[in-house]
Amino acid sequence: MIVIDARRRSFLDVAADSHFPIQNLPYGAFKRPGVGVTHLGVAIGDHIFDLTLAETEGLLESPELQQRRLFQSPTLNTFMGAGRPVWDAVRKRVAELLDADHAELRDNTELRNELLVPMNDAVMCMPAEIGDYTDFYSSKYHATNVGIMFRGKENALMPNYTWVPVAYHGRASSVVLSGTEIRRPVGQSKADDADAPTVGPCRLLDFELEMGFFIGPGSSRGEPIPVGNAMHHIFGMVLVNDWSARDIQKWEYQPLGPFLSKNFATSISPWVVPMDALEPFRCDGPEQDPAPLPYLSGEKRRAYDIHLDVLLKSPDMSAAARISRSNFRHMYWTICQQLAHHTISGCNLRPGDLLASGTLSGPTPDSYGSLLELAWRGTKPVKLSDTAERKFLQDHDTLTLTGWCEGEGFRVGFGEVSGKILPALSVE
Amino acid sequence: MIVIDARRRSFLDVAADSHFPIQNLPYGAFKRPGVGVTHLGVAIGDHIFDLTLAETEGLLESPELQQRRLFQSPTLNTFMGAGRPVWDAVRKRVAELLDADHAELRDNTELRNELLVPMNDAVMCMPAEIGDYTDFYSSKYHATNVGIMFRGKENALMPNYTWVPVAYHGRASSVVLSGTEIRRPVGQSKADDADAPTVGPCRLLDFELEMGFFIGPGSSRGEPIPVGNAMHHIFGMVLVNDWSARDIQKWEYQPLGPFLSKNFATSISPWVVPMDALEPFRCDGPEQDPAPLPYLSGEKRRAYDIHLDVLLKSPDMSAAARISRSNFRHMYWTICQQLAHHTISGCNLRPGDLLASGTLSGPTPDSYGSLLELAWRGTKPVKLSDTAERKFLQDHDTLTLTGWCEGEGFRVGFGEVSGKILPALSVE
Repeated sequence: MIVIDARRRSFLDVAADSHFPIQNLPYGAFKRPGVGVTHLGVAIGDHIFDLTLAETEGLLESPELQQRRLFQSPTLNTFMGAGRPVWDAVRKRVAELLDADHAELRDNTELRNELLVPMNDAVMCMPAEIGDYTDFYSSKYHATNVGIMFRGKENALMPNYTWVPVAYHGRASSVVLSGTEIRRPVGQSKADDADAPTVGPCRLLDFELEMGFFIGPGSSRGEPIPVGNAMHHIFGMVLVNDWSARDIQKWEYQPLGPFLSKNFATSISPWVVPMDALEPFRCDGPEQDPAPLPYLSGEKRRAYDIHLDVLLKSPDMSAAARISRSNFRHMYWTICQQLAHHTISGCNLRPGDLLASGTLSGPTPDSYGSLLELAWRGTKPVKLSDTAERKFLQDHDTLTLTGWCEGEGFRVGFGEVSGKILPALSVE
Repeated sequence: MIVIDARRRSFLDVAADSHFPIQNLPYGAFKRPGVGVTHLGVAIGDHIFDLTLAETEGLLESPELQQRRLFQSPTLNTFMGAGRPVWDAVRKRVAELLDADHAELRDNTELRNELLVPMNDAVMCMPAEIGDYTDFYSSKYHATNVGIMFRGKENALMPNYTWVPVAYHGRASSVVLSGTEIRRPVGQSKADDADAPTVGPCRLLDFELEMGFFIGPGSSRGEPIPVGNAMHHIFGMVLVNDWSARDIQKWEYQPLGPFLSKNFATSISPWVVPMDALEPFRCDGPEQDPAPLPYLSGEKRRAYDIHLDVLLKSPDMSAAARISRSNFRHMYWTICQQLAHHTISGCNLRPGDLLASGTLSGPTPDSYGSLLELAWRGTKPVKLSDTAERKFLQDHDTLTLTGWCEGEGFRVGFGEVSGKILPALSVE
């Protein structure tokens, strides 16, 4: 792990509340203005350091990286799959090149102009080709809230919850980047008192506040990854909004789980924050009682203290309203436990696979991670302003998730994942 | 659609019970002996016609195919995505080249030796790169049987079943080719009378008799495919065995559906039979009552009469025992309805996506599509021989699915999908 000391600074101006100081150095894919080819890069302040060009120029050469072509494709999959020694070498070298005390790039105006792109000029692209997308259900608060609403207080939490890191397979094709507009889905739903379902636009459209991690080196089919080795397979994290159609979900989900209610879109933030940047923010998670089974028994302090905000803005609002504030540390199952569980069956993982957390609701009503919970199934509308409130998302609403770790004098942040709701298409 | 007349014959000898007469011409990927590169080809009798070389040699040129490179990658995805006019042109041309009345290839020994590979010499490969794998639940007989076993006769069929083509997202990374050995998975299960679950090798390992279809041209996110256009997006079909761990499934599946109980492996047959070859075998499916909602209301006779056999062989048996005989026509929801439903939410499809049917149980106990049903949850062991019976799969068992349409004097077949069970690895 390469943890960059809190006192180090870049020669580039980085605002104190920037999400991208030299302590972060997240990876992403982008296009320069007017250029068709996608490059890979690292965020630093409000600039992008172009890894694709830096590699071509020979600036990344080191014994660990010799003759590799890590950054010459449009996604990070090759780099993700290369593993920790390569990640360490690149991170160390990029931090050096961007350091205020290192002259190589700092004092070479021509090279700076070539390798540093203003973030505002770039168009971000999907950071990885996602082979498979898995969504966990790892906030016990969320599972309990949903359980109370759908099955009553007595049966709120399923008996398997504290034993099994519950998850389902999501849809990889519809994982989209922040900024992509989200068409309100159409589907079947059935009112409790109706004889038959109807088909039409979703009436109970919701977001889910989640985070996800990308798989680095994969695994072979039939070979579980022990929980103690999990971190070797985890590359970095992003924000995830698992858009959800609650009325469609309620009617379709028995017995095989959510399908159309989730597969129309899942949005992710563009910058993948490496686990190294999050290392200083490790903390204890919720107590696990009963004790996990041996294959899930890992180290302590494998939660991460990541502040999470949810913002909602309709076109007639001058500024977005914050409707929830939660934290990644509330997750009951750790990312290592999730990964160990995913592979205990022998399921193989591939570089670039995305494993998301499930809705990150906290313990208090102001920290819930969905409108379903925040407005408690429509019974307690969420106030946005003096005149506006929401039970669920309306057309033209923009929902934004943001998250960051608070360091001493700096933030390691995730930027944001944002999506605007478009009206449904008419049903033929 | 290019339906090849029942009277046409190839210049190659094709046995009467061969699955691959000129009326079929299924597509697959293969390697020649000692050659590292994967080629694409068409099965004819016990030979493979090499499409990759045929294209290179300029043998496939026609106005529809000009300057295309359809067969120069290791999977069929490009060809699948090219759409019906291209499929038609290739199928028409390949049938011509292989026809007994056409001299071009028949009388050119050198070209025949180059383009025709004995099937026994080739190693088959995955026909497509599968972006997403979806599994439906479309046999009402199967859903009813499972419902009776798990929830009792009163609540056997969920209220949504006759309205919603129920499905879940499966795991694409672990879809493997026929012949791949299947490691018995490890996971959590809990006895009904136990206080806590245990982790260990699956004790109730099962197969599921399924078929699946590959997506041809994809669709854009947000844009449903009307049921009447579905056939333009369906390339062809394979046999599918959705291996299932029943004890793991029972403990994990609430509330988000099956996960580890399915994701350790799904096997498919190597030859993709084009829908054109199945066209003469269209038939009526089960009556749909209530009438489907408008977006699912399609043409009649969209079932296919495909005979399906399930064979089980342990090492001490001299020949496999047939344990079930079913038919694809028993599927309640048609493939067009499945596809229309999948996209009504706006979920996008990509060429090479695999949509499987769910377990194809028929109406009678000898036509059930899983050991769970055949042995009725272990209460009626299935007789394999005078000395052997099965409740579930044992280590070293080989389970084979095969399927074919019966024409007049020929069969349009799928070959087989086969897998041998390996013992579980020990749990760390």
